[in-house]
Amino acid sequence: MLKKVIELCERQGFLKCVNEKLLVGPVGALLQENLYNEWIYNMVISRDTSVFLSKDSFVNAFEYAKGICQERVPFGIAQVITDNNDQFHFDKHFENSSMILQTTVFVSPTSSTQFFHQWQKQRRTWWRKFSASPGKYVFSDLQTNPDGNQQLEVKVEYSWDKPLVESLGFYKTNHPHLTFDHLNVRDGRKKVSAHYITSTISLSSMLLNTLCDAYDEPDFQGKPRVLLRLHRKLAPYKISFAVTATQSSITDELGSLALYICKQLRTEHISSLLLPSAVRNTLDLQWNQYDQLGVPFTVVLNEGTLKNGISLLRSRDTTLKEQVHITKLPTYVQQLFKNY
Amino acid sequence: MLKKVIELCERQGFLKCVNEKLLVGPVGALLQENLYNEWIYNMVISRDTSVFLSKDSFVNAFEYAKGICQERVPFGIAQVITDNNDQFHFDKHFENSSMILQTTVFVSPTSSTQFFHQWQKQRRTWWRKFSASPGKYVFSDLQTNPDGNQQLEVKVEYSWDKPLVESLGFYKTNHPHLTFDHLNVRDGRKKVSAHYITSTISLSSMLLNTLCDAYDEPDFQGKPRVLLRLHRKLAPYKISFAVTATQSSITDELGSLALYICKQLRTEHISSLLLPSAVRNTLDLQWNQYDQLGVPFTVVLNEGTLKNGISLLRSRDTTLKEQVHITKLPTYVQQLFKNY
Repeated sequence: MLKKVIELCERQGFLKCVNEKLLVGPVGALLQENLYNEWIYNMVISRDTSVFLSKDSFVNAFEYAKGICQERVPFGIAQVITDNNDQFHFDKHFENSSMILQTTVFVSPTSSTQFFHQWQKQRRTWWRKFSASPGKYVFSDLQTNPDGNQQLEVKVEYSWDKPLVESLGFYKTNHPHLTFDHLNVRDGRKKVSAHYITSTISLSSMLLNTLCDAYDEPDFQGKPRVLLRLHRKLAPYKISFAVTATQSSITDELGSLALYICKQLRTEHISSLLLPSAVRNTLDLQWNQYDQLGVPFTVVLNEGTLKNGISLLRSRDTTLKEQVHITKLPTYVQQLFKNY
Repeated sequence: MLKKVIELCERQGFLKCVNEKLLVGPVGALLQENLYNEWIYNMVISRDTSVFLSKDSFVNAFEYAKGICQERVPFGIAQVITDNNDQFHFDKHFENSSMILQTTVFVSPTSSTQFFHQWQKQRRTWWRKFSASPGKYVFSDLQTNPDGNQQLEVKVEYSWDKPLVESLGFYKTNHPHLTFDHLNVRDGRKKVSAHYITSTISLSSMLLNTLCDAYDEPDFQGKPRVLLRLHRKLAPYKISFAVTATQSSITDELGSLALYICKQLRTEHISSLLLPSAVRNTLDLQWNQYDQLGVPFTVVLNEGTLKNGISLLRSRDTTLKEQVHITKLPTYVQQLFKNY
């Protein structure tokens, strides 16, 4: 099954197999950017507590964070490390070592247990939000060490594998990079020794898992329709174009119109795919390609569009088409991609 | 002067000096993320031509791009390389080797000269758009090699240095990583050998230059007011909070209100800074800190806010305050940060 997914991903530029190891292709690179940015949004920008991003030195970031927060918990550090962590077994398929995304939140001992419960709930929501089959994401039992530290794993239950996608930790004792003095913080007026809660993700494993999660081959008119059900926030391309006309002069005109609409959408930072094949291949061939690229919506321009300005917006998931006037497309498409 | 900028940046967590080399601090890491994302938007998402992102292998990305574009130019590759390129002399201040961001667009020989002119104009606009003093960005004279290739440099004219921030190239002959066959493409119905146009930027140099560009110390009430005039799209924190009240019970209430508004803004993906010092330090101390962090706007909550719901929105650049009702803040702030 994994082989099937990788074959599709190679064909569509998500991945590239060289000497039995995977490289990230151009479409996969965009998907990886989107995954990384969603992580940043979730972990750094949209947290209730202040979380600081660390690229170069964890201890420096910690000291800055502690200072600017006047030693008051809670605060956190989101850290990006290039590391060969063997924990995530999907990583071993990749040629290059993965980026490890690790968030550590320092909390007061009085609220740490409650915080860890909430943390688990938030992490569950995150994985299920982006998944095409949310029920597959399961938490392992809580492992408690003799020193009171707890660990938990998030795994995905495929019929053919059960890869680890995230590990969570709850620590009451020393931090590997911090001194006892570092962990000495304020909670209201008291001085306490901070507990800390972690989340660890591998970007490469997350990329491969996102592709496996999105892969589907439902029956369609008696044949399997292979597609990637990528979440619309993650899809590398949000919109693609298909032109259908019988006369070549009309095809050319519709091609220019597609280019015009594409530029409009791109100005709004909506990643759009306009290929020369949009005016050359049959619609069935194009649906095939766009479905396998995981493009959520395709704008269809036909002879009618030149007369009444109405385009069709085809959904990848339902294969249904909706009429939208081309002047309304930019705002309508923005609306479609606004929410999660 | 550079020393002055670096001192400020160390104090505010943008950079960290260790053994006379710079590391990127937590605030600088956010700024770097924003610079990188603006580059992606400009080079990959919002281009008129299709540009593909390459992380692992340039040749693979090129072959995929050529295939999916049915060998038709123009198309481009935006590439991220970790490299010790000595070209950018700001890079030598950094401990770690910089990420080099290089875009290559392959074009037809018949339109390549015009494309290169447009490319120069677009690059000039990009630098000036984000700059606090756009006039400083100058293009060197065009250098033409014997084989017809052309090169151009974008430099910034500070009184104390003239760092290189980007180099542009226009090549008519072989590409270092591609074969002659690779460059054989279609232009309409003709087969031609593609020309290519490049842009090369170093992310570390761009980070340090952005900070130097933003640094300013205008006179304010007889004293120099040190601040970073970071463009609002680049600023690591878009909004900060200041609470001012005489009674501690009211301060607490306003503190909770600030937390509530902050959570609202963060849900909208607006990077907001809420520090414990917001309720403890004097306003002057807070303006100092927020100005030096380059935060464009600060929400001020005072005793009146509890009565009539009106907050003040202080602008970093003008130091003027505007009245905004707290229920209107999220949409108003979104509007402020929407455009360039």
